[in-house]
This record gives sequence, structure tokens and C-alpha cells, in this order.
Amino acid sequence: MKVGLIGFGKTGKAVASVIMQNKEFCLEWVLRQKIALDKRNVSEFLGISSNEPGLIYSLETISIEELLEIHPVDIIIDFSSNTGIYSYGKIASAKNIKIISAISHYQTEEINFLKELSETNVVFWSPNITLGVNYLLFAAKFLKKIAPWVDIEIIEEHFKGKDGVSGTAIKIAEALDLNKSSINSVRAGGIVGKHELIFGFPYQTVRLIHESISREAFGNGVMFVAQNLTGKRNGLYNFEDILLPYFNN
Amino acid sequence: MKVGLIGFGKTGKAVASVIMQNKEFCLEWVLRQKIALDKRNVSEFLGISSNEPGLIYSLETISIEELLEIHPVDIIIDFSSNTGIYSYGKIASAKNIKIISAISHYQTEEINFLKELSETNVVFWSPNITLGVNYLLFAAKFLKKIAPWVDIEIIEEHFKGKDGVSGTAIKIAEALDLNKSSINSVRAGGIVGKHELIFGFPYQTVRLIHESISREAFGNGVMFVAQNLTGKRNGLYNFEDILLPYFNN
Amino acid sequence: MKVGLIGFGKTGKAVASVIMQNKEFCLEWVLRQKIALDKRNVSEFLGISSNEPGLIYSLETISIEELLEIHPVDIIIDFSSNTGIYSYGKIASAKNIKIISAISHYQTEEINFLKELSETNVVFWSPNITLGVNYLLFAAKFLKKIAPWVDIEIIEEHFKGKDGVSGTAIKIAEALDLNKSSINSVRAGGIVGKHELIFGFPYQTVRLIHESISREAFGNGVMFVAQNLTGKRNGLYNFEDILLPYFNN
Amino acid sequence: MKVGLIGFGKTGKAVASVIMQNKEFCLEWVLRQKIALDKRNVSEFLGISSNEPGLIYSLETISIEELLEIHPVDIIIDFSSNTGIYSYGKIASAKNIKIISAISHYQTEEINFLKELSETNVVFWSPNITLGVNYLLFAAKFLKKIAPWVDIEIIEEHFKGKDGVSGTAIKIAEALDLNKSSINSVRAGGIVGKHELIFGFPYQTVRLIHESISREAFGNGVMFVAQNLTGKRNGLYNFEDILLPYFNN
Repeated sequence: MKVGLIGFGKTGKAVASVIMQNKEFCLEWVLRQKIALDKRNVSEFLGISSNEPGLIYSLETISIEELLEIHPVDIIIDFSSNTGIYSYGKIASAKNIKIISAISHYQTEEINFLKELSETNVVFWSPNITLGVNYLLFAAKFLKKIAPWVDIEIIEEHFKGKDGVSGTAIKIAEALDLNKSSINSVRAGGIVGKHELIFGFPYQTVRLIHESISREAFGNGVMFVAQNLTGKRNGLYNFEDILLPYFNN
Repeated sequence: MKVGLIGFGKTGKAVASVIMQNKEFCLEWVLRQKIALDKRNVSEFLGISSNEPGLIYSLETISIEELLEIHPVDIIIDFSSNTGIYSYGKIASAKNIKIISAISHYQTEEINFLKELSETNVVFWSPNITLGVNYLLFAAKFLKKIAPWVDIEIIEEHFKGKDGVSGTAIKIAEALDLNKSSINSVRAGGIVGKHELIFGFPYQTVRLIHESISREAFGNGVMFVAQNLTGKRNGLYNFEDILLPYFNN
Repeated sequence: MKVGLIGFGKTGKAVASVIMQNKEFCLEWVLRQKIALDKRNVSEFLGISSNEPGLIYSLETISIEELLEIHPVDIIIDFSSNTGIYSYGKIASAKNIKIISAISHYQTEEINFLKELSETNVVFWSPNITLGVNYLLFAAKFLKKIAPWVDIEIIEEHFKGKDGVSGTAIKIAEALDLNKSSINSVRAGGIVGKHELIFGFPYQTVRLIHESISREAFGNGVMFVAQNLTGKRNGLYNFEDILLPYFNN
Repeated sequence: MKVGLIGFGKTGKAVASVIMQNKEFCLEWVLRQKIALDKRNVSEFLGISSNEPGLIYSLETISIEELLEIHPVDIIIDFSSNTGIYSYGKIASAKNIKIISAISHYQTEEINFLKELSETNVVFWSPNITLGVNYLLFAAKFLKKIAPWVDIEIIEEHFKGKDGVSGTAIKIAEALDLNKSSINSVRAGGIVGKHELIFGFPYQTVRLIHESISREAFGNGVMFVAQNLTGKRNGLYNFEDILLPYFNN
């Protein structure tokens, strides 16, 4: 599967590295705003040995139309910003290139645009695209269905500098109808990222814990999603849509 | 719902205590082998204030037929031994009294007998009847379906005296197609019972943990099952059959 | 060693049970306010087989002077209330009967009284008398000395009904010069009591965790203290004074 | 403090990076066997902005004598191999350059050589030079002194590929007089390195846990040791010798 990647920040780089090391996928190009690394090769830049083209382009020197002409792809993966979708959305849908967006925060406007695009294309969006966090969310919602009266508390732990409450923890709390006060935020050096859900039953507890050790986890989430979009009809998908069919097998 | 309890060992006592404190259920009687506590009242014996009859009978002084004549029930809950089923199975099915068996180990012979009984009755069997452990098993099987290549390890921790590997851990390992060598057994004072499943993905881990603090957890599992058997057709059910419908809602 | 116990609430009962099962100590009597169980035997009341006298007395029917006349003891253990000390303190010190007080909250007045008593007697006071919690506190203070710049966070988890922040967690925070905002309180069914201290270093973390499964843990703490007060000079001791000598061996 | 680093494998690189970013220390040079990076600058090679000299030398093009002539240092830090000490030990001691060796396994021969060198120099050796692991070991030994009868179990978790039982876990087991069978080894993707010590008391447990997220933790251990060797007399020191004085303050 030929892949184009939009965005090359810290997470974009980690995702590019995972794609390049996965034999099922071929990284055709990376597209970013900045001109700094123009025409350099991702594998050489990241120090990975690979034969995949993986050239870095800048929107200042090439348009998305030209790029897709020279290097056609099957999927566009978006780790840029919430406005990135406007630069490639229409042409991708016109050419039936699947879209996987991993943007953290979209406004209603962008979500509506995704819906529009999904009428004629396979479009996927997840604000946190790791398999582990999405599984946690899924399993937690299921447990709450079984035992709606259970006490639920969330502990999220991150490195000292992280500002505010973890966005993922907030999303989990919302999905479980919890008050924000159920989230306990711990900040201390030496922690990458940990989310723990505690379910308190009479005489027993269940804990669901997810820990990340690096941003490469997002890359694996993208690969998982891409594989699971194969054969899907046009429409807007989220991670739950991808997990659900496994349940019915 | 009127309940009769077969077996009054440590776990039977804890289960009786939970049933007596649950207003949806009324403990009509306890039936056991030993004659020691004959005709004593469960609530008085356990020091619980309750108006439920809850008399303790012995098979040495009453037959199951007589007992059901004097104190009819809707459900029989079995925490006795693997041969207990032969004393009450046929008459329970004849009278359409649901059976919830929480016996840890059945031979093929007993399982076949359960199947026979279930042709004309609602029969449930689970070797570990806590909600938490069964949820863990269910959620773990689902995660393995999603990611069959994931590394899975089990840590089970119990009090120092516990002999051998935890039966629950063995059942989890079997359900996940794991080698017994994936089970790590920790024995130390001050631990009641803990099962931890570690799922190792590249760059991330998921942990599912269950901890019990007392045998009363079995009582809550029984109540949960009894509530969920309401309206079920005749047949043999296990805990997975009870959890699955929550998924499709 | 002959022991007298003051106070027979939930914790007092658990402590009495531990003392009775320890062969080094002999429970001579329990003294309490209420007359309800007067002259009953602790072993019979708690269902423990023991030959120790262990009679329950009430302050309404006997004075502490008479009691010590009939049943002399080597140590008085106090799990009553913060005013209990006034009923037995002076006579205990006069008779050189060691005092172990496990009262959670003393006012300055009582602490001054303890100091006064300790001039002519061995007096020990600890607001939380479990070995585990005191070890945690000790080890944590030591780690903070080594690395004063480390990030420290506390997570305390207890059963749903527990009001307010755990007193033990507050004491730990004070001992480590932490702001109260460093304490994260989790309340959920099925948790007895857990205190977790997280030390965040660059690139690594250390966690110190204590978990209780029942009040009997206090009994073991009392036994440990009593053994370690042997041969001590008159003075007021706390748990740190008891632990420190182990360090220098 | 001027520092020379011997060895530039994965850990050596991480340590060099930490030293360069610490203002109290100046990385004068790195010395290694291989000629590959000869005369390149560490900061440029690792992509760190720094004004420290930090040149990479190879033993094939320069002798340790010449190197110390051109770039004198106060401390030599050794992350090479167990024979590295023979290349620089004598000259370092002659010039009173402190030695910090972080070699995992020394034979008796090398340990004797260290002792010899320490007669006229400050020499430090620790097979695992992270602060966290050494604190764990120290705190665990102390707890075992307090409660020699406690049940102790070790769980060590590492990434899937790690061969054999963790060397650190083995050292902890030896220090605590535990059988090797007390070590439970878990191998699963997405785990960097975790050591958990479980102390089981009646009715309570204490857990000491150390987790690393990268090799840079070794760099911080080296900095801590170097700071604490200031003002020490000649002699052979280990990590316990460094921690002990904090206790007596």
C-alpha cells in the first residue's frame, strides 16, 4: 500500500519511521509546510535503512495536485494541524485516496467537512490513534454497560512539563459519563504516559492500564487502521468502528 | 426471587451473607451435608439482621423433595461439590427451578448431565463466578482477536499458603492459547488474590488487573447471573453468554 | 509479655485477635467504656481458641487501679480515644508499665502529657501503627534526602465511603514537605487501603506502595513495637526511633 | 568538573548526552576502540547544542597518556568493557584522576586491580549505576533487616528480546539472600525495564518498584556519584557507600 504522510513534527517523524520499517506499506512522500528539509530523504534523515522513496516535500515548492501526479498513493495519513484537511481533502476524495486523520482537535466545521468527503471516500478520524488507548476506551464502555453502578476513577500520569489534564483522559471521562473530578493527574519526571481506569465493585476491583513508551505507538495505530480500512465502503469511520467487527467474529 | 443455596463452606457462607443483604433476593434455605447447624438460622449464625427465613438444613434430616415442598424456590445456587448436582438436578429441572452452579471442577460426566438437564431447564455453570474475573477473560479474548500477535504474560498473586498455580490463571491461559510457562505465580503474605494480564505491543502495553478482597465477590457474581437469567430460554449458559448481549446493545 | 488492651472498637478487636494468636504475648484483659460485654472472654467472643485469660472489663464496673491489682501487666496498649490516656497514664508510669498508644489524633495537651509520663516510663506513640506505612514514610524521607529535587506525588485509594483525604497520606505529605495538592484521593468499592508514593527522576521512577487487607495489620505493628521497646530507657518514642537502630547494625 | 568518558556504545552515548547537558560537568573527550568516529565532536554527532570540547578519540590513533596530556580531566568514567580498566587504571591513579566504573561484570582479577588502584586514588564501581535501582536495593535490605521473616518476591519485566534473567534482579536476589526461584521474569513488547519487589507481611504488603524509560538514567547516576565523590579519601567505593552518609544526617 502506497502511503503519503502530511505533517512531520515529532509525532510525524515517529510515524514515518514505523511506516518505513513495515513491509506492507511503502512511504512515498512526506508533505509539510516548512521548506527546511525539502527533497531530503526520510530514511537518510532518520537514519533508517530502507529502499522506499520517502522524499520530503514542502507546500512552498509543490502543490498537492502535482505531488499526487508524480507520486500517486493509496492512503493519505494526516498528522499536521486541524486545517491541513483543507489542503488535500477534496483532491484525495476525487481520486479515491483513503484518508486517515489523526488530528487531536477538530472544530465542528472540519468534522462537517470530513462527513462531506466521506460521502465519496473512505475517511477515518481518531484524535488518539494508538491501539491501546482505543481498546481501553472500548473495554471500559463495555464494562460500564454491564455494571452501570460501578465506581470509576481515572489516574493519568505524565512527565512533569505536561500542561493541563490529559486530553485522552478527558475523552475517556466523557465517554464514560464521568465528572472531570474523577480524573487524577500525576506529573513527575521519568513517566512517558500512563492512563489507568479503576473500576470499584463490592469486594473486588478491575483496573485497565495503558502505558506508552514512545510516539512510535501512533505509527502502529495508523498501520492497524490502514489494514482494517481495506474493503470498507465509503463513509466516516472512527476507532470503535474498526474494533467492533472483531467482536462479532 | 426465592433462592435455595446448596453448600455452606467458607464461600457458601460469604454468598449467603450477600444474598441476605440483597433486597431483590430472598434466601429460603441452605442445604448441606453436615448436621452440625441443623435448623439454625443463617442470619443469626452470621450475625446479619434480616427477616428472610434462611434456615440451615442437612441432607441427613431432610430430602431435597421435602425441602422444596416446604420451601419452594425459583433458583438453586450450588457451591457444594462436583457431585452435588446429582442430589438436586433432576427434581430442579422437573420443577423448572433454575440452576446456577459455581463448582470449580466438573468431570465430563457432570458436564453431560448439565447438558441433559438444560434441555428442559435454564442451567448456568461457571467455575469462577466473579464478575471481575469473567470480564477480564472476555476483554482479554477480544484483545487477542484484535491483535493475535501480541505478547501476553500472566502474573497471579496469592497468599503464601496457596498451593499450585491459580486455577483461574490456568483457565485464562487456556482461553488465550498460552503456554503454562506464561503464568508467573507470586506467593506472599498480605495478598488476597490478584490476576494481572500484560499485553505487550510495540511501544505500548495494556494491563488488565483483577483484585479480590473477599469471598463475598462470588455472591455478587451469583446475583448478577441470577438477574441476567431472567427470561432466558432453556439451555446451558456460561458467563460469556451472559456478557455477550451487553455488547450488542 | 503480659498485655492489657484499652479500647475494643473494630480496630481494638482485630488487635486483640492478633495478640491472642501470638505466643510471645499474653492478653490479660481488655478495658472499655461500654458495659455490654462485661466479664466475657475475648477468645470466646472472637471465636479464637486460646488459653489466655483475656477478660473484657468495663470502666463502669472496675477502676484501672483494681484491674492492675488483680491482673498486673507489662504493657498497656491504647486503641481507645485521645482522652483515654488520662484514665491510665499516671498509674501506668507509677508502676513502670510501658505504654503503647496508637491514637490517631492527639492535641498538644495530650502530647505534653505523654512527654511528662515518659520522664519516668517507656512511652510510645504512633498515629498509624502498621509496620508497612511507617517503613514507607521512613524510606521516603531517606529518598528525599538523597534527591531533594525529585518530583513526589501521592496516590491514596480507599473504599467509597471514606470521608476526606486519608490522614496517613496527609502525614506523609507533611513529612516530605509536600503541598496537599500532591495527594490524589481515589474512592472506589473493593479497595481496603492503598498508599502509593511516586518519585519522578529524569528517565526513571521509583514507587513505594503499601496495601492493607485488614485491621489486623495494626496488631502486627503493635507486636513489632512491643518487641522493640524491650530494654529501652525511659523516654517518648515514635516509630522512626524504633526503625533507626536497624539501620546502624 | 572535567570528565573523560571511556566507551561509546548505546549506553556510553546516552551518558555522554547527559554529561553535556549538565552545567557542572564538562565532557572533555570520549575514548573508544573503534576508529570510525575519530575526531568527530560528540555534540554534533548526537545533535546536542553545546560548547564543550567533547571530541571522540580512538585508541588506534592516540594513547591514554597523550590524551591526558592534551586534555587533562578530573574524573574518568568507564562504560567500556571489563578489560578497559587495564588501559587507563594505573595512569589515572598516578595522576589522581578519580575513576567511576560502571562495568556490569568484573572477574576477581579486575576487582583486585580496582582495590590496588584505590590505595592511592578514589575509585568507584557499581554494576548498575542508576540511582533508582541502588536506592531500591538499599531500601530492600533495610526492610529485610527490620523483618527478616517477610516473604519477598521479585518481578522483573523487560522487552521481548531480552535474554535470560535480568542481571539487576539477580543482584537484588543475592543481596536479599533469596533463591533464584523468587525471580519472576516477564518479557513483552513495549516494556523498557521494570523491577518490582513485593514484601508480603501478614495483612499487608509493601512494594518497591523501579522503572527506567531510557539509558540516560545511567548518566544521571554517574553525575550523582561524581558529585558525591567530592572530598572523599582514597579508597574503593560502591553505591551503598555513597547512600549511607545521607542516612546519618
